[in-house]
Amino acid sequence: MVREGNWGRWGEQDERGALNLLTPERVLAALQTPRTGKLYSLSMPIERTGPHLDYRGAPQRLTLTNHSDESMFVNGFGGRVGVGANEDIVVMGTHTATHMDALCHVYADGATYNGHPHDGMSSYGGAAYSGIEKAGTIVTRGVLIDVAAAKGLPHLDFGYAITADDLQTALKQQGVELRPGDAVLIRTGWLELFMETDEMRLDQPGLSLEAARFLGEQDVAVVGADNTSVEVQPWSEGEFLGGHIELLVKRGIHLIEHLSLAELSADNCYQFLFATAPLRIVGATGSPVNPIAVG
Amino acid sequence: MVREGNWGRWGEQDERGALNLLTPERVLAALQTPRTGKLYSLSMPIERTGPHLDYRGAPQRLTLTNHSDESMFVNGFGGRVGVGANEDIVVMGTHTATHMDALCHVYADGATYNGHPHDGMSSYGGAAYSGIEKAGTIVTRGVLIDVAAAKGLPHLDFGYAITADDLQTALKQQGVELRPGDAVLIRTGWLELFMETDEMRLDQPGLSLEAARFLGEQDVAVVGADNTSVEVQPWSEGEFLGGHIELLVKRGIHLIEHLSLAELSADNCYQFLFATAPLRIVGATGSPVNPIAVG
Amino acid sequence: MVREGNWGRWGEQDERGALNLLTPERVLAALQTPRTGKLYSLSMPIERTGPHLDYRGAPQRLTLTNHSDESMFVNGFGGRVGVGANEDIVVMGTHTATHMDALCHVYADGATYNGHPHDGMSSYGGAAYSGIEKAGTIVTRGVLIDVAAAKGLPHLDFGYAITADDLQTALKQQGVELRPGDAVLIRTGWLELFMETDEMRLDQPGLSLEAARFLGEQDVAVVGADNTSVEVQPWSEGEFLGGHIELLVKRGIHLIEHLSLAELSADNCYQFLFATAPLRIVGATGSPVNPIAVG
Amino acid sequence: MVREGNWGRWGEQDERGALNLLTPERVLAALQTPRTGKLYSLSMPIERTGPHLDYRGAPQRLTLTNHSDESMFVNGFGGRVGVGANEDIVVMGTHTATHMDALCHVYADGATYNGHPHDGMSSYGGAAYSGIEKAGTIVTRGVLIDVAAAKGLPHLDFGYAITADDLQTALKQQGVELRPGDAVLIRTGWLELFMETDEMRLDQPGLSLEAARFLGEQDVAVVGADNTSVEVQPWSEGEFLGGHIELLVKRGIHLIEHLSLAELSADNCYQFLFATAPLRIVGATGSPVNPIAVG
Repeated sequence: MVREGNWGRWGEQDERGALNLLTPERVLAALQTPRTGKLYSLSMPIERTGPHLDYRGAPQRLTLTNHSDESMFVNGFGGRVGVGANEDIVVMGTHTATHMDALCHVYADGATYNGHPHDGMSSYGGAAYSGIEKAGTIVTRGVLIDVAAAKGLPHLDFGYAITADDLQTALKQQGVELRPGDAVLIRTGWLELFMETDEMRLDQPGLSLEAARFLGEQDVAVVGADNTSVEVQPWSEGEFLGGHIELLVKRGIHLIEHLSLAELSADNCYQFLFATAPLRIVGATGSPVNPIAVG
Repeated sequence: MVREGNWGRWGEQDERGALNLLTPERVLAALQTPRTGKLYSLSMPIERTGPHLDYRGAPQRLTLTNHSDESMFVNGFGGRVGVGANEDIVVMGTHTATHMDALCHVYADGATYNGHPHDGMSSYGGAAYSGIEKAGTIVTRGVLIDVAAAKGLPHLDFGYAITADDLQTALKQQGVELRPGDAVLIRTGWLELFMETDEMRLDQPGLSLEAARFLGEQDVAVVGADNTSVEVQPWSEGEFLGGHIELLVKRGIHLIEHLSLAELSADNCYQFLFATAPLRIVGATGSPVNPIAVG
Repeated sequence: MVREGNWGRWGEQDERGALNLLTPERVLAALQTPRTGKLYSLSMPIERTGPHLDYRGAPQRLTLTNHSDESMFVNGFGGRVGVGANEDIVVMGTHTATHMDALCHVYADGATYNGHPHDGMSSYGGAAYSGIEKAGTIVTRGVLIDVAAAKGLPHLDFGYAITADDLQTALKQQGVELRPGDAVLIRTGWLELFMETDEMRLDQPGLSLEAARFLGEQDVAVVGADNTSVEVQPWSEGEFLGGHIELLVKRGIHLIEHLSLAELSADNCYQFLFATAPLRIVGATGSPVNPIAVG
Repeated sequence: MVREGNWGRWGEQDERGALNLLTPERVLAALQTPRTGKLYSLSMPIERTGPHLDYRGAPQRLTLTNHSDESMFVNGFGGRVGVGANEDIVVMGTHTATHMDALCHVYADGATYNGHPHDGMSSYGGAAYSGIEKAGTIVTRGVLIDVAAAKGLPHLDFGYAITADDLQTALKQQGVELRPGDAVLIRTGWLELFMETDEMRLDQPGLSLEAARFLGEQDVAVVGADNTSVEVQPWSEGEFLGGHIELLVKRGIHLIEHLSLAELSADNCYQFLFATAPLRIVGATGSPVNPIAVG
């Protein structure tokens, strides 16, 4: 791959990509965005049902201890009768429910972001480069681009490829301009449709390659959406994971998928403080997240 | 249990406890706390090694797909040669590494917080009341109480029970006063000691019952610490989980354990914006978190 | 529950039920059954696809190590270049694919087999009574009752309730008589139909309550079938798990489900040596098995 | 690797190795071995404690449903009050507790058994060649070589390398001669020592390379032992996994580890019917087993 996009921009060893844009100045400025102080949770629930792909399995919460184990607390830990602890174990894919893709998630032409070798992901050790534990903390201005609402639709059509013009039109209607370092969240309405119908389809509305390039050129730090892959399926221009290659691989822009954006949309809340930090799972290719918006 | 603490304060059905203190006004005020714009991640890494209790098992990140599966991407998904996706599966306890306790985590005398029945936690369904998915989003002022530093120690002694006076002395040295709705983070130095020695001991420094009561009386919203159970072990006044009962059960104050507080301490950063949102795992008794501080 | 069936027959503390019928004499006699020496595997493959119920999740085989971890073998274990080990982790339900039900699997009217208390199954500890690790080793004469073949059908109709007369007619056609201590395997043809169509339906052919009682009265040691629950669904006489109650709870007869019986059927092999031993998972309610037949 | 051992002996595509020795004649002959009809289970219990290596994690049995979920049975499945089902989920390594190694488990010089490519093990798909689901059913004569007892010791010393002469001396004392197709089980006494002390050490007694070669030359079908790797550690002749390479890779002889041989030893039962069939986990590198002996 010819060096392009942001490769080398933050050093040859960089593993954080566009998150380097989150300078203290931008962070402090972002803190001044909120007007209402209303708190939003942008994740969907994690449960066995959901828009889960079969090959990843459904997430499972399994009870480790509950009141049926009280004798263990009493005899094993010296508890008094009537006192105990409920605990659980979770088994889940790191790309299930609302989650952030690490920069190592996708490779193309032998490399992940910044030219790190594509085979640097071993079975036991996980990602040697750009694992999700390298991402760190994200606090920046968040911008909702409510494409569905801008078109007056509850949700975009299956397979609809959002254009750069769609993004610009929606931004104009919303009265917001993108700035470098923003976290941009695209609403297609797909997740709400899924939650109503419980029907998992992959031909989802999402970004065209051209729209992905537009966002990359705005120098945003994060791109998220309320669908399964941020980008449209069937793949824009027929390129498997083309939007991931454009944003994640070339630009080092972390992606967030399956975002719950209905409440922001209902409130016409287009600018907000955006804050999230993926779990520091060493070597992981992604992490479930529950991103925060402050309106 | 006699109704005491905060039971009933936010309604008979309440499942969020002291997080109800996070009014929009307090949220907006908290956004004005930061001075430097420096971002902190307050979680420890999640990997097989760590201060894990045997009965919970060590967390496992397992590779689901990597470059060795490229034929699956090419043949199954229509990818072109050289393009693929790295993914993983995580198996972990919800009370492992840095995590937040749900209000349903501990029960005493037949009830969890707010009088919800202690047997409302079924094996398959999980917590019927006060599961972690009910907690929502937390944004408030964070206050570090660096008890170890206030005593001029790298870490408190094994089994040292922090007193209310210790907390007040440290706060005074730091020049900070607690306010209702604060997220209070207690630094004992224990986690740093563990990371150096890799020796898991349960006789850790932590809050005495008296200190826990003091914090409850300040009406704080969240209490966290850099040890395994926030409270001291061996148990203060010999009461198994007594600190949890005081804070979590009676007051509805969420607890966060295994916090990484070394960097805040090194920067003498005692007040900050604190933001986190547990994963919305339905029915779960806790969630791994990577809390954010903005200095 | 009135004491009935086999409760108390092998002592008040017994946890093995009808497996007590496997005396050394019967074992030695069973070894004389085979004529051809042909080996059969009676289990279906364990993979993500299969007749899996959603609430149990699909079984997952996850790679723990492979050649991508060779540096771990070389650096961590002192291996020479080119040498390594492939390993995996399995996550699966104990009642998934071909498996044996422990006697603790089902309870009715406050008790499992032999009157052990129904709440003796704690979340952490598992089954205090009649866990699968108590079953031990099973070697006995196996008898196939090929009900589908006896009726000249590739498979019985969905929801068909096999009668005692069906069993006796098939045995007569096959020229076999049941003996105490036998392992009786019922072929409905359902699993073969599933493997062709990959369509999971619960309204499967299986034993009626009356047929289950008939088998219990023959004093057999084990009952298996090629369907999901041995007994018919919808439930015979409308009783949820009625066949399990009749055989497992009252009689202490272990059940084996999702058996692969096509090859025995094709060979008209109606009598054989049957051998299996469930995994000794302490406290478990069942175990995947791969039962052996020697024709 | 020069073609040696059994490569090509059963065809270029063979994935079963020495299990091809189990002809119907040998199977029928093996059925005549037992004298007492006593049944043995040769596996250790599967529980969180045990001789588990950290990198594989401890096996976990987790309750999926129990009586606390009765409302799910009643409301979801139409059960009557007082009836329910206990179920569990198991998470475990395939090389944990008593288990059989698939022929794909170890590779050397670019190949597994029979020259199959060493990189034929992908993360998602698992083993393309010689996965454990290819092994099938094992019924043959079993021979215990009780090396510890032959030396008059409760257990061999840590790190003791069993010689071919040790094996022959023990066989002579026992009055047994090896025959092609036998399943040979080596008792070092190590597992009994572990069960007493709960101390996991890797410097275990086991086969020297020379003893492994001797067994291979006898054309046995299976080799098992009561230790962690069949072969001695530290590695015989300093070769990492050298015994595995000799038996598994070159000869196609499946290995079984962590066998429980105390009861056979106590009974001086040196010849028996041996029967086991690994779980048919597609693509897996091994399987937990509970092998059967009939004395």
